[in-house]
Amino acid sequence: MKAEIISIGTEILLGQILNTNQQWLSVKLAELGIGVYHHSTVGDNPERLSGALESGIRRSDIVITTGGLGPTVDDITLQAISRTFQIENPRVIRNLVGTAPGFVYDIGGKLLIALPGPPRELNPMFERSVAPLLKKKYRGEGVLKVRTIRMTGLSESFADRKAGNLLKSPPPLTVGIYAKPALVELKIMAKAADEKRAKALIDKADRRITSRLGRYIFGRDDETLEGAVGSMLSRARKTLAVAESCTGGLISSRITDVPGSSVYFRMGIVAYSNDIKSGLLGVRGVTLRRYGAVSRQTAVEMAKNVRKSAGADIGLSVTGIAGPSGAVKGKPVGLVYIAVSMKDRTFCREFRFRGEREIIKFRSSQAALDLLRVSL
Amino acid sequence: MKAEIISIGTEILLGQILNTNQQWLSVKLAELGIGVYHHSTVGDNPERLSGALESGIRRSDIVITTGGLGPTVDDITLQAISRTFQIENPRVIRNLVGTAPGFVYDIGGKLLIALPGPPRELNPMFERSVAPLLKKKYRGEGVLKVRTIRMTGLSESFADRKAGNLLKSPPPLTVGIYAKPALVELKIMAKAADEKRAKALIDKADRRITSRLGRYIFGRDDETLEGAVGSMLSRARKTLAVAESCTGGLISSRITDVPGSSVYFRMGIVAYSNDIKSGLLGVRGVTLRRYGAVSRQTAVEMAKNVRKSAGADIGLSVTGIAGPSGAVKGKPVGLVYIAVSMKDRTFCREFRFRGEREIIKFRSSQAALDLLRVSL
Repeated sequence: MKAEIISIGTEILLGQILNTNQQWLSVKLAELGIGVYHHSTVGDNPERLSGALESGIRRSDIVITTGGLGPTVDDITLQAISRTFQIENPRVIRNLVGTAPGFVYDIGGKLLIALPGPPRELNPMFERSVAPLLKKKYRGEGVLKVRTIRMTGLSESFADRKAGNLLKSPPPLTVGIYAKPALVELKIMAKAADEKRAKALIDKADRRITSRLGRYIFGRDDETLEGAVGSMLSRARKTLAVAESCTGGLISSRITDVPGSSVYFRMGIVAYSNDIKSGLLGVRGVTLRRYGAVSRQTAVEMAKNVRKSAGADIGLSVTGIAGPSGAVKGKPVGLVYIAVSMKDRTFCREFRFRGEREIIKFRSSQAALDLLRVSL
Repeated sequence: MKAEIISIGTEILLGQILNTNQQWLSVKLAELGIGVYHHSTVGDNPERLSGALESGIRRSDIVITTGGLGPTVDDITLQAISRTFQIENPRVIRNLVGTAPGFVYDIGGKLLIALPGPPRELNPMFERSVAPLLKKKYRGEGVLKVRTIRMTGLSESFADRKAGNLLKSPPPLTVGIYAKPALVELKIMAKAADEKRAKALIDKADRRITSRLGRYIFGRDDETLEGAVGSMLSRARKTLAVAESCTGGLISSRITDVPGSSVYFRMGIVAYSNDIKSGLLGVRGVTLRRYGAVSRQTAVEMAKNVRKSAGADIGLSVTGIAGPSGAVKGKPVGLVYIAVSMKDRTFCREFRFRGEREIIKFRSSQAALDLLRVSL
């Protein structure tokens, strides 16, 4: 079963947007056991699109197009399809998020599926309508299952060393390593005759990875760190308050991305200046004068005081220097203190992050949420 | 002058890595005035690569391949090129970062350039060796300039209607419209003999767009809404404090993404529960009881009180229902009140947003920053 993906849009060829749909669809098709043999991109040009559609249907069993379905003048996919294949009666796939529906054509027994370009429309449409259709039509080809193990607080090279021989697993098992800032993922893929056998292979590899790297694992597949922390807070019936300096509200925002977070999240304070830290957060003047706003002592007082003032069970605080300016002697850009305060204990850790302002903000929020996770 | 880019690697087709080379090269080629008409990706398979190379050289003047040049068994680019075109004497391009060099072939007057896949090797090799070569060879082909006009607070169809005939501009001018949640972009592209002429064409189109849609424009090219608001606050020497409910810290986080924001950003409070709203933010109990936490009256008191308590010039507040739960009779998910309080005036606007939780959070933050921008 051969599939290919054709992206449509001059803005992609101009480099104005990064084509993430091809990767996303490739992963989804792989999970269905369908191999992708070609990616291609053409602009909003009827002849070149027609050429791509023709080659696609000639050499592949399934052709998925993305883009060119909206109401504006450069949306040309449907006209090109009907002109190329003299076919007019697709099955319509509803779009629950945007305006442009998707379309499924049967072209001499081959499938041509036209989907919208924006990922927020394409992704749910594929999951809800296209994946079930493909599963039904191409049943019996075996299944490929994928599980992603998500970790933070470790380097890629450390994960690589620990995963070791698993990364060289022979078929039908594949383990790959992918690193982003403050996030390392191990992807386990297994191909088998059925779901159950594939799952057994994956479970076995998962257990081996967990025994080596368990303490860094915060979730699997789509689970986020903030979601994992939220579940733990819910289960423990604990409430949280956050005091942020250099992360500027990012931690509160990530925590409140989780539906239902109002149950455990009480309050966040973004204290960007010393007088807010001393006024609203009650950090003592002597602490700020003697140790500075970016110090272990200030972080500890912030965490304690935000917990008390919110009447929460746990206080989390971050203070640091996100850059590019703000560094002083002995306190470089990237120096960050994170403190967690509970009724019976308070602790603080020092971090030194690298990168640009937004990367340091993100790494700090990741480390803070992970410290909270570990302490729960 | 037509160019195309062929990426080589089974790991791309499996979705294991995101193909960023195509975008990067497209931008670089556009800057040289060279149009890219096709992107394609094939796996580590000699026949399919050969097919892609043949189509490429048939339809384009310049073909750039990335990947498949390393020492491992699946690196097949050079063999495929020599087999496909019966040619063996490329010019070698040194790789100062990695081990695999690049190659330039002349195939009947057309250029075939084989570059390594890792961006950290490809990017410097292109900048140092390939760009100068292309500039020399295709001098006098002119330049392509691009400007993006960024807007919020309007729908794509409204922008489409207003831009009207500009979207159908004949060459050498192209105007395209791109929409994301709470963001509409018009991209102006102009091709001309030199930089100055291209800029003049773009300036003219920019003026026409500004005269029709000026009030929605917050920035151009890479300028962000939070960056634009920050510049206005800096220039006006005003300070800001933010009280957030449903946006959960996202507004503060976006504001503090801007380097130097500590000059104007005083404080953010994320009040996720009624007792924080009444306690820390001083919203009157009678207001919360009579009108509810999601109301015009609460938004106004939040904005006034956060301004006063931070000693800031401007208070910005948001209260609403991000969903998926939390809706009550008469107050659906997506209902959001945003208030701005200054010394001499306070005003509030009601919004009704659609989408999932994170989309409503983002739309709310966008509307809040835009209300602030307009009021400045």
